[in-house]
Amino acid sequence: MDIRELYKSYKELDGKTVEVQAWIKNLRAQKEFGFIEINDGSFFSSVQVVYDNTLENFERVSKLYLSASIRVKGKLVLTPNNKQAFEIKAEEIEVLGDSTADYPLQNKRHSMEFLRSIAHLRPRANLFRAAYRIRSLAAFAIHKFFNEQDFIYVHTPILTASDAEGAGEMFQVTTLDIDNPPRTEDGAVDYSKDFFDKPTHLTVSGQLEGETFAMAFSKIYTFGPTFRAENSNTTRHAAEFWMIEPEMAFMDNNQNMDVAEAMLKYVINYVMENAKEEIDFCNQFVDKGLIDRLNHVRNSNFERVTYTRAIEILKEHEEKFDVKVEWGMDLQTEHERYLTEQIFKKPIFVTDYPKDIKAFYMKLNPDNKTVAAMDCLVPGIGEIVGGSQREEDYAKLEKRINELGLDMDSYTWYMDLRKYGSVVHSGYGLGFERLIMYITGIENIRDVLPFPRTVHHCEF
Amino acid sequence: MDIRELYKSYKELDGKTVEVQAWIKNLRAQKEFGFIEINDGSFFSSVQVVYDNTLENFERVSKLYLSASIRVKGKLVLTPNNKQAFEIKAEEIEVLGDSTADYPLQNKRHSMEFLRSIAHLRPRANLFRAAYRIRSLAAFAIHKFFNEQDFIYVHTPILTASDAEGAGEMFQVTTLDIDNPPRTEDGAVDYSKDFFDKPTHLTVSGQLEGETFAMAFSKIYTFGPTFRAENSNTTRHAAEFWMIEPEMAFMDNNQNMDVAEAMLKYVINYVMENAKEEIDFCNQFVDKGLIDRLNHVRNSNFERVTYTRAIEILKEHEEKFDVKVEWGMDLQTEHERYLTEQIFKKPIFVTDYPKDIKAFYMKLNPDNKTVAAMDCLVPGIGEIVGGSQREEDYAKLEKRINELGLDMDSYTWYMDLRKYGSVVHSGYGLGFERLIMYITGIENIRDVLPFPRTVHHCEF
Repeated sequence: MDIRELYKSYKELDGKTVEVQAWIKNLRAQKEFGFIEINDGSFFSSVQVVYDNTLENFERVSKLYLSASIRVKGKLVLTPNNKQAFEIKAEEIEVLGDSTADYPLQNKRHSMEFLRSIAHLRPRANLFRAAYRIRSLAAFAIHKFFNEQDFIYVHTPILTASDAEGAGEMFQVTTLDIDNPPRTEDGAVDYSKDFFDKPTHLTVSGQLEGETFAMAFSKIYTFGPTFRAENSNTTRHAAEFWMIEPEMAFMDNNQNMDVAEAMLKYVINYVMENAKEEIDFCNQFVDKGLIDRLNHVRNSNFERVTYTRAIEILKEHEEKFDVKVEWGMDLQTEHERYLTEQIFKKPIFVTDYPKDIKAFYMKLNPDNKTVAAMDCLVPGIGEIVGGSQREEDYAKLEKRINELGLDMDSYTWYMDLRKYGSVVHSGYGLGFERLIMYITGIENIRDVLPFPRTVHHCEF
Repeated sequence: MDIRELYKSYKELDGKTVEVQAWIKNLRAQKEFGFIEINDGSFFSSVQVVYDNTLENFERVSKLYLSASIRVKGKLVLTPNNKQAFEIKAEEIEVLGDSTADYPLQNKRHSMEFLRSIAHLRPRANLFRAAYRIRSLAAFAIHKFFNEQDFIYVHTPILTASDAEGAGEMFQVTTLDIDNPPRTEDGAVDYSKDFFDKPTHLTVSGQLEGETFAMAFSKIYTFGPTFRAENSNTTRHAAEFWMIEPEMAFMDNNQNMDVAEAMLKYVINYVMENAKEEIDFCNQFVDKGLIDRLNHVRNSNFERVTYTRAIEILKEHEEKFDVKVEWGMDLQTEHERYLTEQIFKKPIFVTDYPKDIKAFYMKLNPDNKTVAAMDCLVPGIGEIVGGSQREEDYAKLEKRINELGLDMDSYTWYMDLRKYGSVVHSGYGLGFERLIMYITGIENIRDVLPFPRTVHHCEF
């Protein structure tokens, strides 16, 4: 029986013999009795096991090290006056695997840096048990949300021969011998000898491929790893992270925002309902305002404000900012947070950005200056979702690609979507780790990723 | 309203005005009436739209090309005597985006090779609409299966600095300039200048990292892309594919097989219940025996047979095989298929393989010759799942790593799992594309992947 089951049905198990296999989280051996906290990871709370320390067959137990694995058989007894609702009075304790005195994850405060250096053990620590279970539930909630609305889940490719979106620096992927690559007659690297007969990279976005599926299924989403080879050593950037990218035919930018808002609320609701213990832990030890903040988001109607209006508002508070506010600028985190935290005091969508600071594929507005983009900003974190309506007009899209000097040949297939039955369509991207940081209050992206990959760091 | 909703509630909509946006799948304009089949991808079957070809405002409609997008407003009428249960009598037809005469996906038989060359358009063809919707549902079913049993979904890393499993050829990932890489004093490539300060590759398996999480949460699974740089141009190999890898603490190889069997049945049931139209299509046009085969799997108890016994059985039919049967050999596809198709006539697990043909981490049996491995073989395809109990004994695992001449330094963190509370644990891998091939009857892995990456091919 696992500990989740014990917690689910301990009332019915009162007085019954139960058997559990788990790891030792804490052990106190007193003169007469020993107390062991055990956990098998199936439930956030541990179970207390009490054993008679005077009995010879428990002699070895008192000498076990932290994280040893044991099998316990004993009677479940309700303990209504204790912190925990029940305990197990041990009849048998079998040692499955002992641990050692130098087990690195002792019950004391460790620095986050140290814990990152033992990424293979840190999932056993409470903070990470909370973070990774919330991560798992949030991933499921996203799949469930889109499945209930008949979106098709598409595995867009990770390996790509084009830097089509230009969203960031890319990693190159190769089977050539870098020390001594094959060369053509004129001395260039001979990529016809590479695995794919040409240079290939890791994807920075599945959006463009996703659009091809939206033109067949109407509503699709991607959810997969994405890569940026950016040399930015911050608490919010990782070289490898997971992204969700829905794409919807027959939907404009307003409907796009409706979906994004519904999705965020759905995931937060799902996690709060299914990870109560973990959220309580984060609220207590990571971010004291967490539950209030999440409740606020669940119950708010997200505000929608144009970029142009947002700039006007920000100008009224110009003295607050390091970076001067001007129409045409990219909003900085300080501006984004001021808008969502101080002005609107709730999540907002900023829409209709200047075309020059947004990607080529975004739908040009009738003013010819702005595009039908939207960024969702939330208190405490800033941007969490970015998206837009896509330019569905062949001629306008062609013009924009040429204006920006992009290589039209790389976009033939993308242009085809505007040639064979083009329709209004929209989509957005959600950085999954940002969402988890938001839901847990954890401030460093390295601590919500199982094995973070950042510049200079690729361990395990 | 989307077409799925129309099919769900057409009886209640009889005589009512409905509005649909979709693409033209077929168009026949006769003297008095025009007939358009439209589909928006939300449902497998199309909807027939009838319009009065004598009316001036429909003049343009008859000249539309295949795949043009339109908005139709009209009255839904039940047609109990026709193949389709209802049709729409058009009152308004708005052209959203026309197509062209040379639209590549005309309504005729195309070769699979040609369709692969238009991978951005083929999701609009019936076969691929079936395949990709089944793929999406199967992915959801896998998440649902594990979620219902409280498994934690772990995103194991794609970028890795170790070739720990040695499961196959790897792709190198780099930000160095391959044409002119930085060199150390002694002329070697200076990887301290690479993004991660050392050579990195794309993962071939998340298992070892997955095990670290199983030691914290008991039951975990991965579901993500995996890479093999193998130069094998077959119908079953892709350079990029998706894999599911559950890992379970406190479970032996028998329980491992229980989970694998339950998972396969769960996914097949889920797809058959939720993609009836798509499965019917595959049964009719891809593989006539498909539904019988899937039903057989759902209703069979998978047989379990040791490798040693399987060899004995195969020897009795030695004349049937190209490759001679001997204890110690790796089973070939011909042997696997003979066992599951001819001998047992249902899915089987072959267990306890010779240690020398299996990976270093597999649990050594008391006979010292075999390991507690298991492969699941299914009729029509052969191996679909491969897994094992893992060696939890520190000394035995260490001995095996040394015997095989592997670099112990790379495994320090993996060995730690046997040092700090080791427990019996097991897991397996399921190639997701193989599963989709199995459920659809599609024979080439290129046709169940959205944008297949195979040797020499990385388009879109």
